[in-house]
Amino acid sequence: MAANNTLTAIAVQAGVSVSTVSKVRNGGTDVAPATRARVAALLRQHGHQVVSPGGFGVVDLLIGGLHGPWSEELLRGAVEAGDELGVSILVTTADSRAEYGKWLERAATRGTSGVLSVLREPSAADLRKLARAKIPLVLIDPPREPTVFIESMRIRSVGTTNWQGGLTATRHLIELGHRRIAVICGQEGLWSSQARLEGYRAALAEAGLRADERLVCHGSLSPDGARYVTAALLDRADPPTAIVAGNDGQAFGVLQALGERGLRAPDDLSVIGFDDVPIATWASPPLTTIRQPLAAMAATALRLLLSGSAEPHHIELATSLVIRQSTGAPSFGQ
Amino acid sequence: MAANNTLTAIAVQAGVSVSTVSKVRNGGTDVAPATRARVAALLRQHGHQVVSPGGFGVVDLLIGGLHGPWSEELLRGAVEAGDELGVSILVTTADSRAEYGKWLERAATRGTSGVLSVLREPSAADLRKLARAKIPLVLIDPPREPTVFIESMRIRSVGTTNWQGGLTATRHLIELGHRRIAVICGQEGLWSSQARLEGYRAALAEAGLRADERLVCHGSLSPDGARYVTAALLDRADPPTAIVAGNDGQAFGVLQALGERGLRAPDDLSVIGFDDVPIATWASPPLTTIRQPLAAMAATALRLLLSGSAEPHHIELATSLVIRQSTGAPSFGQ
Repeated sequence: MAANNTLTAIAVQAGVSVSTVSKVRNGGTDVAPATRARVAALLRQHGHQVVSPGGFGVVDLLIGGLHGPWSEELLRGAVEAGDELGVSILVTTADSRAEYGKWLERAATRGTSGVLSVLREPSAADLRKLARAKIPLVLIDPPREPTVFIESMRIRSVGTTNWQGGLTATRHLIELGHRRIAVICGQEGLWSSQARLEGYRAALAEAGLRADERLVCHGSLSPDGARYVTAALLDRADPPTAIVAGNDGQAFGVLQALGERGLRAPDDLSVIGFDDVPIATWASPPLTTIRQPLAAMAATALRLLLSGSAEPHHIELATSLVIRQSTGAPSFGQ
Repeated sequence: MAANNTLTAIAVQAGVSVSTVSKVRNGGTDVAPATRARVAALLRQHGHQVVSPGGFGVVDLLIGGLHGPWSEELLRGAVEAGDELGVSILVTTADSRAEYGKWLERAATRGTSGVLSVLREPSAADLRKLARAKIPLVLIDPPREPTVFIESMRIRSVGTTNWQGGLTATRHLIELGHRRIAVICGQEGLWSSQARLEGYRAALAEAGLRADERLVCHGSLSPDGARYVTAALLDRADPPTAIVAGNDGQAFGVLQALGERGLRAPDDLSVIGFDDVPIATWASPPLTTIRQPLAAMAATALRLLLSGSAEPHHIELATSLVIRQSTGAPSFGQ
């Protein structure tokens, strides 16, 4: 009786029906986000527990694959923030459109408070399905230039300052005295790689250095992707004295290419990574790198998802330079 | 009507009440596992969908922390096997007893099909709570010697053949010609480390080599844990020519200690890791290691959990030797 009386009081205070209050308390999904937020706040003030929409406090993390330390950092951030916010993180790997569709069907059936989609932009058809099932979405590290709308649907996303990261990495090498600096990018067409490359060019321009397009290389974001490229760079008549790698995995590949010739960073060549995954400190020598705050990105995305607010549509968390031992002054001719 | 008629028919066939059939169909938790399995099979035969106990097909993965490639491999195995088996994996990090208790309360409230607990053995009190909430449990990589019972509760677990892994690693080095072989173990008291150390001793004994206790070292299962130990070993008047590391992280630390002195594996010292995490191939040179089938262990644990069977109480998946480039014949005096 006492409980029902509070529900009535809350209904009056919020200007909604008692049945709406009850729906919010029990995690019903057919309540407008703004109304839900208002009612949920009142319920909590009165000591009621509020079940997340979907019936249980679960958020889906959808990730292409769990094949590297990069995805693990995002996962860790989401799990730790979820613990703080009282939601559990449900992990699904979905590489293909078919797997995405299968996940979507399952999530719509069991209910979910929303989905964090890593590096993957749903198709317009999937976005419509998400909207119909009232499943909110936030992209982490959008693969294309962040946009406000896909067709008529609003898209929210969280990323990092990739352009500035490329700029900072290259500046660091220039300040150490390097003049012939190569860059290895990820796959062409990947938004983050493109932004980092433009940052590299901006740093060269800022220092009055001519960009040598023969030193701009592409490879997959893995050690192998960089090992071959580095070997080719070292074979040149005028090899670079430093390399800006596309991520920490590529930096490991640069170190391997050096090791295969009995060379070593930073004495023979400097290399700087990108990401600062925990194992960046495992390299010989430990990697100088551009830190991408992956765990914080996931936490930010989760908060944005649960807040239900449409603005801002895109947030970038700052990169920062982490100096360890794989970079130093050039030791041979410019 | 048709549906209810089948429920009645199934109840008769299974020798249970219609309400029990209905409970199983809807994922009720208060049905004995054997009864549930029998009724669920009949329901599926008749084209009914059966909801996992707990209300939705979710299994909890409880892990101390997500701080390394080792835990990520287990997670990947669980997520991929879950996808096959139609359950979603919910990830929680719980390092302390308090966090474990918080998770348990939440899981009991929302329901779960069971829990995979990594490297952590619940206290007797927590085990009783799990039993009361009818949450089945399987341990992955039990921290103590696997046991059938804790107090009166049956414990099921999945691990790897640690003893044999230590044996195989050491044998490989002996076959390459090494005689002075050091071993770096993980924390004392950790079951897997103890078993690996005994495997090392067995290989020496089998080859008629005397174990030199000054070459048996301990350190945390991280690069730092091994870097200092390796530096001390290299400072000896009679340094070892090879090191059996406690895991791949430690092997990375051995490579760092070598690099700091301008030395390199395998020319100056051989090192073999343990685990074969994906980034074992990122090392310079890529690590020879003992493969622990982490993803398959998680998948096996998940199947054991969902099968509901009490036997076997412990399963070990075999380790195997993966030869890459960090081991070779000794190049200096024995």
